[in-house]
Amino acid sequence: MKYNIGIDLGGTNIAAGLVTLDGKIVARASTPTLPGRPHEEILKDMADLGIQVVADAGATMDDVGWVGVGSPGTADTKAGIVIFANNLFWHHIPVAKEIQKYIDKPVYVDNDANVAGLAEAVAGACKDYDNSIFLTLGTGVGGGIILNKQVFSGSHNVGAEVGHMITVIDGEQCTCGNKGCWETYTSATALIREGRKSAEKNPNGAIAKAVNGNLDDISAKTVMDAAKDGDPEASAIFDNYIHYMAMGIITLINTFDPEIFALGGGVAKAGDFLLDALRAEVHKYIFYKDVPYGSIVLAELGNDAGIIGAAMLGLGK
Amino acid sequence: MKYNIGIDLGGTNIAAGLVTLDGKIVARASTPTLPGRPHEEILKDMADLGIQVVADAGATMDDVGWVGVGSPGTADTKAGIVIFANNLFWHHIPVAKEIQKYIDKPVYVDNDANVAGLAEAVAGACKDYDNSIFLTLGTGVGGGIILNKQVFSGSHNVGAEVGHMITVIDGEQCTCGNKGCWETYTSATALIREGRKSAEKNPNGAIAKAVNGNLDDISAKTVMDAAKDGDPEASAIFDNYIHYMAMGIITLINTFDPEIFALGGGVAKAGDFLLDALRAEVHKYIFYKDVPYGSIVLAELGNDAGIIGAAMLGLGK
Repeated sequence: MKYNIGIDLGGTNIAAGLVTLDGKIVARASTPTLPGRPHEEILKDMADLGIQVVADAGATMDDVGWVGVGSPGTADTKAGIVIFANNLFWHHIPVAKEIQKYIDKPVYVDNDANVAGLAEAVAGACKDYDNSIFLTLGTGVGGGIILNKQVFSGSHNVGAEVGHMITVIDGEQCTCGNKGCWETYTSATALIREGRKSAEKNPNGAIAKAVNGNLDDISAKTVMDAAKDGDPEASAIFDNYIHYMAMGIITLINTFDPEIFALGGGVAKAGDFLLDALRAEVHKYIFYKDVPYGSIVLAELGNDAGIIGAAMLGLGK
Repeated sequence: MKYNIGIDLGGTNIAAGLVTLDGKIVARASTPTLPGRPHEEILKDMADLGIQVVADAGATMDDVGWVGVGSPGTADTKAGIVIFANNLFWHHIPVAKEIQKYIDKPVYVDNDANVAGLAEAVAGACKDYDNSIFLTLGTGVGGGIILNKQVFSGSHNVGAEVGHMITVIDGEQCTCGNKGCWETYTSATALIREGRKSAEKNPNGAIAKAVNGNLDDISAKTVMDAAKDGDPEASAIFDNYIHYMAMGIITLINTFDPEIFALGGGVAKAGDFLLDALRAEVHKYIFYKDVPYGSIVLAELGNDAGIIGAAMLGLGK
């Protein structure tokens, strides 16, 4: 066994790769997901991509240990089932069983944020640590919690939903139905919401100008770039964002106490501007000033984390 | 080896017991802690109590596997050191090394809430489960997180501080220096604070009457008893308390996703009145309505959890 197949199932595209044991992608392929189709079709496409990357690399199935799948939503990792994936309209889909119709290998399934966290833990920013938390700051906030180099997802596979830690009881409405979830303050969506509010109030401000008054074009980057340029309104939004990010990280330190946090997703593209502010804010509020706590760094694998982490799901199993 | 010694170090008393492998205390002894003394004296008293319970049970040190110590504050479990214990005025105290001067056995040290959580996991309310969270609702809120029947305390021994999950950013001032920690809303102290506020506003209300106007006598029980009797002001405080408890439990479900929660400490003495309300509130806000989540029960071992859990610290080591 020299390789494993990693399949990153997204709402838009399916990406598959043939991956070495140390996390290098030696062949890759992708196809549109076209959600709404019968799940059997999607799963056949996934298997076909897996078969294709093996052939493209000049390998055979004898060189392959297992197939791993990262899926949106919630997976029953023991049964190889996706329990829910709203953006795929999936509900209790037997992913492992379907793929095994085409590829006779063990098939492992896990949530996409868990998978990306595993990729960073094995081959990315957290590779020198046993215990890490990967945070993806995008439309929502996803988390991949790795304990002893294994994905931690709790007793019923619904743990590690760090975006839904309640950080302001009765606060902002979350898409999950609750209020005050961490992601309502720390996702890219939160920065966009606050940026829009500010631009509506001040149509001549830096944020509104950056999008030529087309407030629908405001992105997280618009707000952060304006903050970086010193615009006071954007800076206030950014400072508040950092405060909320830091408070959730403090909660994660006071509970999971990892060795390292790695930040990915769109917001993390702000790089050092984000990191420096976040590190300073966390340090200010840390509970034990003279005990070490998890460092905060940028994730390293970008979009490849989905393929690489999926291919790592069989490790230690 | 038939027994282990468990020592429960408190701010007021030191309690020791000789404990069977399945968690039965066969002999016990205690002595006042008298904090402020040189730590060597306190640790000699602890060792002496250990030696005494072995003799009292008619056993010898040959029957003893190890010594376990539950301490307030934060422990470096690998080094056997108490890093901080404010109420003992302790800072970097080599507990294991000192006790080993008198008892030539492995000595394990951990935080008292972790130890009580382990006791409940091995011999109490959570004994049928691998993954549990024990919550002690007292002056503060302590947590003992058990994963795979082992104490989980993170990478730097400062995890599992669930009382300091930030649940209302910039909320009530906490003794830890931060604001909005869970325990500022869910400890007995929180019920007392809100009870007092209410009694000050309404000196003829049920809470003030229950303590004959001596507002310093208001306890968590005063408030909960008045709520149970249907007093509207006390009920409002209790309902709010339950809401905040539930929101923190939701955060713990969305992150650690345990099989069971066990509630101990003074507030848990309210029994079913507390449980029924809390279960209903958690159910109302749970994220995944059709995935099982951790049940909520009362802890079973009471004050003995400190001795029993300490005696279990060597399990699997």
